[in-house]
Amino acid sequence: VPIELTLARRAIRMSAPLHPETGSAIPFDSGYASPQAFPDLTELAQRALTAYRNESLQYGAPMGLPALRDAISSYMRDDGAAVSPDEILVVDGAKQGIDLICRLLTEEGDGVVVTAPTYFSAIPILCSFGLEFIEVTQDDEGIDVAMLAQLLQERQRNGMPEPKFIYNVPDFHNPTGITMSRRRREQLLDLAARRQIPIVEDSPYRKLRFEGTAEPSLKALDSNGLVFGLGTFSKLMCPGLRVGWICTTKELLERMARLKSDGGTCPLTQRIIAEFLQGGSLPGHLQRAQRIYSSHRDAMVAALRRELPGVEYIVPQGGYYLWLRFRDGVDTNVLAARAFERGVSVIGGNVFFAGGTDSYSAQHDLPKQYIRLAYSYAAPEQIDEGVKLLAAAYYSMR
Amino acid sequence: VPIELTLARRAIRMSAPLHPETGSAIPFDSGYASPQAFPDLTELAQRALTAYRNESLQYGAPMGLPALRDAISSYMRDDGAAVSPDEILVVDGAKQGIDLICRLLTEEGDGVVVTAPTYFSAIPILCSFGLEFIEVTQDDEGIDVAMLAQLLQERQRNGMPEPKFIYNVPDFHNPTGITMSRRRREQLLDLAARRQIPIVEDSPYRKLRFEGTAEPSLKALDSNGLVFGLGTFSKLMCPGLRVGWICTTKELLERMARLKSDGGTCPLTQRIIAEFLQGGSLPGHLQRAQRIYSSHRDAMVAALRRELPGVEYIVPQGGYYLWLRFRDGVDTNVLAARAFERGVSVIGGNVFFAGGTDSYSAQHDLPKQYIRLAYSYAAPEQIDEGVKLLAAAYYSMR
Repeated sequence: VPIELTLARRAIRMSAPLHPETGSAIPFDSGYASPQAFPDLTELAQRALTAYRNESLQYGAPMGLPALRDAISSYMRDDGAAVSPDEILVVDGAKQGIDLICRLLTEEGDGVVVTAPTYFSAIPILCSFGLEFIEVTQDDEGIDVAMLAQLLQERQRNGMPEPKFIYNVPDFHNPTGITMSRRRREQLLDLAARRQIPIVEDSPYRKLRFEGTAEPSLKALDSNGLVFGLGTFSKLMCPGLRVGWICTTKELLERMARLKSDGGTCPLTQRIIAEFLQGGSLPGHLQRAQRIYSSHRDAMVAALRRELPGVEYIVPQGGYYLWLRFRDGVDTNVLAARAFERGVSVIGGNVFFAGGTDSYSAQHDLPKQYIRLAYSYAAPEQIDEGVKLLAAAYYSMR
Repeated sequence: VPIELTLARRAIRMSAPLHPETGSAIPFDSGYASPQAFPDLTELAQRALTAYRNESLQYGAPMGLPALRDAISSYMRDDGAAVSPDEILVVDGAKQGIDLICRLLTEEGDGVVVTAPTYFSAIPILCSFGLEFIEVTQDDEGIDVAMLAQLLQERQRNGMPEPKFIYNVPDFHNPTGITMSRRRREQLLDLAARRQIPIVEDSPYRKLRFEGTAEPSLKALDSNGLVFGLGTFSKLMCPGLRVGWICTTKELLERMARLKSDGGTCPLTQRIIAEFLQGGSLPGHLQRAQRIYSSHRDAMVAALRRELPGVEYIVPQGGYYLWLRFRDGVDTNVLAARAFERGVSVIGGNVFFAGGTDSYSAQHDLPKQYIRLAYSYAAPEQIDEGVKLLAAAYYSMR
């Protein structure tokens, strides 16, 4: 007789199935990077395994490889945020960063602010900590700070504590593609400072800008130590390296390092990245990646204009995604299933909304109106065909 | 004015400083691997970055690389445990495995059984989940199952729930070097089955056996699905790869994969390991590692016999450590500080005992009687010198 185990509440909450395989369908569901955009790392790996052999194959420092922390610090400074190497903790990707910030700050039942919709991989992490979601919508300047201020006032009137943090993707938001305006960033920082609520700035796509001018990061504008910055090399170089970072104060990072029970982030991949950055390869690589993803976006937008002229979306100036809104009563989660039958994999709105049944998003029936299309991974020649298949599935439902 | 944050209880519990740097001291404190025992991975890394480029640089499968799960399954079968690839979850080292099992099974305040002493890196992980320790001593056959049975009965009489799991290192235990006898393994499994308590078998050193015959693993003897097996390539190959595994049922592994918020274990290092295993390099590599660590152990034992003839220890048949007992009232935590001043870094008993002030170990004053010496990392020529410095520090305290 096999043992009967009582599972932890957090494990029971995580009941959603793992994301299924796309199989042979055209992969508009996938936030995978384009293999065309992968850098050649063969020489750097050789160097890491020869010149740095004893370091790359040994346990690494709990806070991360000093050379990499230096290089990340330079990168952040070039991006306008005066972050010293001491203010950087290397982690196993930005998702581990979210996890560590939850470990540092939250107890079961605490509130956390998210956009509606939000990054779908953040939702199960926040759920596993038993957090309650405070959903805030966005307009084309980003998260609706007036709505957030009102929700926080209501909570205060009801005697509820402040949320533990505001989670947001300010640049080329996943899934909407929206970039926060400068004014909105300042409003968000002001509100957070007045209420002493930290902000988690998750900004993987920031450097994948195809046109227009970047706004300063929240971290760069932050004069009150409010912002936990999250970075990742998944979009700057490639996802397989599994390295990201958190920036905040040294003291908080050391606490998070103690909660980071993984034996340290891989020193081999850290060294490969440090060599890549120190060798000056990042700017050229990013230019190439921008060209590739920009052409993917253009191909998808052209196909959508032709095949689905009625659908609403913002054309993002960067990032990986288009966020389509169908206002005609078609349930996008059914549409996603029908599209998959025809050979294109897309993600229906459901998984991007954190709230429960009485949430803002559910009350306004948002999850049924949207689908996310990723143009990152599909090859350009697949994009046209995939949009045609999606359109055919859509018209079959009307 | 910087923001004032309320930290989570788990973050406040983790108040111990990170392990300090050894600096130029002879490193008997360190469970680092010997650089002499590192494999040459340059060719396998090239193959991973060329033939498997699109897989190694992309996001990986949540459960781990199929080729690696196959290879681990073969390894487990060769070791006597019929574990299918479905019953293996690849993780970022065995410490992440402990963390995931805690996420799966435990709530704050739950009990967990550990040996006194136990693996010191497990203690903060278990602490961060707010677990209460049930400490059990060992004799030369391993964990004292009669004592454990008695403690569990007492808890039952007091209306306390069963502990959530029994954590143990049955082969070349860290820090004691003890290997459980076959009889004791069967007794532990019997007790766990009667009480339906899972066992976490953490066995990093199992293949670093220098002489004598291995006992079957707990996983191999387990006919009731009681055992969560934890493995790691840190000791089989080298620590820098940051890859380990958990084996239990497919259903529990899928739940843990959902709680593993790291974006998947690094596909590049997974492929390097899969190629190493599939290429048949492991047995020869392990023979070389056994010879190296065996000679380190012999050098340390010879030096101890000469320099510290009164000290008690078991000579282990494998692993990384010697666990010295001083019965003459010398406080080993003071001894560790004195030894460090003289140029050799060792770890005093304190950090190996999980229990609080009313614990078994504290009542019997165990933390002050022991130090752990690692012979793994120090070069053979340092071992003799290091033991001399330790002996000098010891005699200066008498």
